[in-house]
Amino acid sequence: MKIDKQNIRMTCRSPKNILLTDKFWKRYRDLVKKKMIPYQWSVMNDQADIKITKERGDHRIPSEKSHAVANFEIAAGKQKGGHYGYVFQDTDAYKWLEAVAYLLTAEPDRQLQKVADRLVDLIADAQQDDGYLVTFFIIEAPERKFKRLKQSHELYSMGHYIEAGIAYYEATGSQKALNIAKRMADCIHEHFGPGKEQIHGFDGHPEIELALAKLYEATGNEQYLELARYFLYQRGQDPQFLDRQIEADGADRHLIAGMEGFPLSYYQADQPILDQKTAEGHAVRVAYLCTGMAHVAKLTHDDRLYEACKRLWKNIVGKRMYITGGIGATSVGESFTFDYDLPNDTMYCETCASVAMSFFARRMLEIEPKGEYADVLEKELFNSTISGVSLDGEHFFYVNPLEVSKEASQKDPGKSHVMFERQNWFGCACCPPNLARLIASVDQYIYTVDPEEKTIYSHQFIANRASFEQGITIEQSNNYPWDGTISYTVSNPEKARFKFSVRIPGWSAQCYDFYLSGKKISKEAHNGYAIFDVTDERLELELKLDMRVREMQADNHVKTNLNKVAIQRGPIIYCMEEADNTTPLNLYQLPKEVFFTENYEPDLLRGVVAIEADALRDEPDDADASLYHEYQQAKKQMKRVRFIPYYAWINRKSGEMQVWTRKAD
Amino acid sequence: MKIDKQNIRMTCRSPKNILLTDKFWKRYRDLVKKKMIPYQWSVMNDQADIKITKERGDHRIPSEKSHAVANFEIAAGKQKGGHYGYVFQDTDAYKWLEAVAYLLTAEPDRQLQKVADRLVDLIADAQQDDGYLVTFFIIEAPERKFKRLKQSHELYSMGHYIEAGIAYYEATGSQKALNIAKRMADCIHEHFGPGKEQIHGFDGHPEIELALAKLYEATGNEQYLELARYFLYQRGQDPQFLDRQIEADGADRHLIAGMEGFPLSYYQADQPILDQKTAEGHAVRVAYLCTGMAHVAKLTHDDRLYEACKRLWKNIVGKRMYITGGIGATSVGESFTFDYDLPNDTMYCETCASVAMSFFARRMLEIEPKGEYADVLEKELFNSTISGVSLDGEHFFYVNPLEVSKEASQKDPGKSHVMFERQNWFGCACCPPNLARLIASVDQYIYTVDPEEKTIYSHQFIANRASFEQGITIEQSNNYPWDGTISYTVSNPEKARFKFSVRIPGWSAQCYDFYLSGKKISKEAHNGYAIFDVTDERLELELKLDMRVREMQADNHVKTNLNKVAIQRGPIIYCMEEADNTTPLNLYQLPKEVFFTENYEPDLLRGVVAIEADALRDEPDDADASLYHEYQQAKKQMKRVRFIPYYAWINRKSGEMQVWTRKAD
Repeated sequence: MKIDKQNIRMTCRSPKNILLTDKFWKRYRDLVKKKMIPYQWSVMNDQADIKITKERGDHRIPSEKSHAVANFEIAAGKQKGGHYGYVFQDTDAYKWLEAVAYLLTAEPDRQLQKVADRLVDLIADAQQDDGYLVTFFIIEAPERKFKRLKQSHELYSMGHYIEAGIAYYEATGSQKALNIAKRMADCIHEHFGPGKEQIHGFDGHPEIELALAKLYEATGNEQYLELARYFLYQRGQDPQFLDRQIEADGADRHLIAGMEGFPLSYYQADQPILDQKTAEGHAVRVAYLCTGMAHVAKLTHDDRLYEACKRLWKNIVGKRMYITGGIGATSVGESFTFDYDLPNDTMYCETCASVAMSFFARRMLEIEPKGEYADVLEKELFNSTISGVSLDGEHFFYVNPLEVSKEASQKDPGKSHVMFERQNWFGCACCPPNLARLIASVDQYIYTVDPEEKTIYSHQFIANRASFEQGITIEQSNNYPWDGTISYTVSNPEKARFKFSVRIPGWSAQCYDFYLSGKKISKEAHNGYAIFDVTDERLELELKLDMRVREMQADNHVKTNLNKVAIQRGPIIYCMEEADNTTPLNLYQLPKEVFFTENYEPDLLRGVVAIEADALRDEPDDADASLYHEYQQAKKQMKRVRFIPYYAWINRKSGEMQVWTRKAD
Repeated sequence: MKIDKQNIRMTCRSPKNILLTDKFWKRYRDLVKKKMIPYQWSVMNDQADIKITKERGDHRIPSEKSHAVANFEIAAGKQKGGHYGYVFQDTDAYKWLEAVAYLLTAEPDRQLQKVADRLVDLIADAQQDDGYLVTFFIIEAPERKFKRLKQSHELYSMGHYIEAGIAYYEATGSQKALNIAKRMADCIHEHFGPGKEQIHGFDGHPEIELALAKLYEATGNEQYLELARYFLYQRGQDPQFLDRQIEADGADRHLIAGMEGFPLSYYQADQPILDQKTAEGHAVRVAYLCTGMAHVAKLTHDDRLYEACKRLWKNIVGKRMYITGGIGATSVGESFTFDYDLPNDTMYCETCASVAMSFFARRMLEIEPKGEYADVLEKELFNSTISGVSLDGEHFFYVNPLEVSKEASQKDPGKSHVMFERQNWFGCACCPPNLARLIASVDQYIYTVDPEEKTIYSHQFIANRASFEQGITIEQSNNYPWDGTISYTVSNPEKARFKFSVRIPGWSAQCYDFYLSGKKISKEAHNGYAIFDVTDERLELELKLDMRVREMQADNHVKTNLNKVAIQRGPIIYCMEEADNTTPLNLYQLPKEVFFTENYEPDLLRGVVAIEADALRDEPDDADASLYHEYQQAKKQMKRVRFIPYYAWINRKSGEMQVWTRKAD
């Protein structure tokens, strides 16, 4: 294995060098700090007075409380009792800790750090002598350790801790936090691998791969990278492995009810990863796997692995992604189905899957700065990730639909997973803390640096002040995503020679303007980036993006969106909802020629650009009319229609929502 | 209870007085006789070499063979072994016997009758001394008799025998067959009712009600009618009854896996039937219940009950029925969902539900001859019932979709119940024999006679020769459903005064012509019927219906059909399928003005009128095109499109099918 140490420096990862000044994202990060983190802490300590929503199939899982912290107390021998919740309940605490780490990086907070330190202490106490830590198995079934990887989530759980431990170490310098991670990795390293006495297997839920790659970066210990690579390449080599383990453990002793019938492709375990041509199975698993693949491909210069990443990327982004960035077309197994199958009202589009897709996009960008990676990352950040949390930070979506009606969710069992209001908390609470850690670390997604090419890439339009090597600083200011003017002030006190490469979003590729020191210049983009040579002490650059309202159309193989358009402005996908418009919403139709008006409304939904237009509207048929009648051209009237950003839907009153609007042809 | 004995005569039930001469239906009845009946007999005797299709959730039910006959052998003590199959497996044999009875009525067949007689003997041997007969409970759990009515299907099973026994008695005079039925009813009468020692309950699956009403008509024994009425009115009076029984029996001892989670409305048991405002739950249960309600309402002159029937009829037909006549919008519980929720590709539309809807329509017609009842009956007969069997009579659909793609059925778990080819046989084999008994008795659906009004009603256009009281005969001849000319020759040798009332289908109400002895006359219709006073010895009447091709449209509350039309000609709903057209089929669009050509093709699908038109067709987007792009008006080209009758779909090659086609607006 060729490990390219140089390349590690490629990413501008150090959040200490970047200060978020962005209005939009600071509000979200404040929400994480002031609402989500304290709220989740009280939930994990069973102190919050909440109504927990059970997901489909959850009636066999206890989920009246979280118990996540208590599970550690019991595993550590500080409290008596049994384990409660999912087998991967520990990860709620780990993702919380990781989010806290990013918050502390941005802004010290002694009180918060004290709470987190105590959690780290507790985790350390619960960790076993050999480094193992999954509270379910420690408490309920120590003899079954690593014996049922299809469902056990053991490496998945420890992987999440490893991510948290690294982040917490980087934020606070806590060696204790890092040591827990290293001891976990060492434990896994001992049990898994090609050795005769080792388990030649992998976890049913990818995660450990991306975590070990991060741990290698944090520690420089190559054995972690080798192990990550081992897990990636071992996956699917021996398709019967997972079921042989289950058979040995006892086929009737399931850990998670309802998973019995899922095929091996649900776990991306039916064939070796290099042979996997399409994204199959559980969407979160796919995106975590791809994130790990891309990270390891970069660190080991593995072209075949990168090709596999690109193949899966192309399949997901080109054939299986919603316009909001959501992935997972069916609720059965929260999974992908097939190319162009993108139903708007029965889909899954789990918040976690969009968070994971952001991770994947970031790792792809680190290998190769291509506009399409940054475009998808932007799509995720501004749409189907943050749609998972209410504007008050206290209510969450697990499933992010593109079309909702209350009656359908209540009365059609095929849509019972589609909530029409964000919920307090979930029995399987993976999404809220996952979103918290993404938002809290959004500053990590803005730039990458390629030292070989001496290039700083600006990927995302998120206002900040960042400092780089040789005293270089960049101040990015904007009022994005509402305004398309992006200003950069690059300071280069040492007059270093380097390139500053600014992304031109795909949606603005046909029309954008650059102003250099106030003077309009023409600049072509390559692979989605406009490249500026910097030699002077100071560079004043302004980019004006094409923010006009667009009517977007899906490939016409997407059955459900034929004759429909979705409204997009900048990176924001819009929707229509009952709070502003008359139901049924699908009776609206945009005419051939539409004139949109756009207004920034500071008091609407914490400040958004709302879009309005005159639309056609079919008169609803009489309630007593016969269900079928001979065709007559519809009677239509003009009616004003209003669109709001998709991420902000259902923050006023509950009711219908739709992203795709009919278009007159 | 006021029992109106006169009214019993209202229906022209006696099939001995009617001879089917109809080309279309004789072919189907021959198919039942020559293919379905011998084939099902071999299946029930486990002699057929078949591949049995398991329905969703069926993996916990043994269904490698039928074993239906063997279950009776074992219950009768003639064979050793255990019960195999569903708890209601007996009904496969009963429906088979009922279909045979109708065939024997139409045409004696000593060989077939001998086989059926032996089955009757075997059933008699299996029946217990007290009249009870459900082979599952006799063999496996005699101590649980009548103790778990929510799932046990005991009264349902015996109800099906009662129907078969009556039919067989009426066809062959077999007192033995009738006695089994009476003894079953007596057994049920002993155990159920308001008495102190009796069970104050009802079956989770309606059927016994309609069977007891028939038994009353066959025997004149009022206690059967009273018991039918008791079951109807007891339903939902004590919503906890079913669950109290289960609790007492042991909540973990389920009879049918997968039914645990269904609400009481699934069983129409959540409230008294007079309070049920909408059709809820399992569609077949609803339609059987309504059939029993209507029959008892007629026999007891119960206006409240008839009002309840009309309310449910209006809800089903006006808000919850597919244009094919299919009912049941979701596969979860094979159930109704809510008004206007009629998805074309995830629906259930069970063949049995359309068969049951035909029964309901027939009973409504017997109360009040209204065109809308006969229209729905016609819709069922010519579309979503016979779509359940292939033209070769050997392959069956349980689920009758309005839109199918092979890939979706294979890769979207939400559509895994939608088969894209008719199947050999089913683990739950309710549909094929149900369809067989409907087809074999189709002559019972053509006329009713109202003695009080001295009126003979012609409801269905199915060629026949029928004789009535006072020597009256009617010869109906036509080439329906392909040709709209319906000829009647009424002979009235005794010059009796009566009315002959001919239905004008709703779809032809705006345009039809009558010819009396070859002379065109103008005749208004009332309630869907044109009434002729007959006094002469002979009446030569010709009705010409409006058979032009129609583009039908759904109420615009039906989301999925907005901007779409379905093609109808006469009573036949058409579809487009891959055998004739380029896929994806949804890229076709009918222009504003369409010119249809219609041709009877004797060699196509055993003779059908095929319909063609020039349609617009979007050019499919390139496989490598980006999934979303800015809106452009679609490039369209003209392309010939061909429609075939829905009932005959997938008799050539498997592939895509759709009933609803996009319409340019």
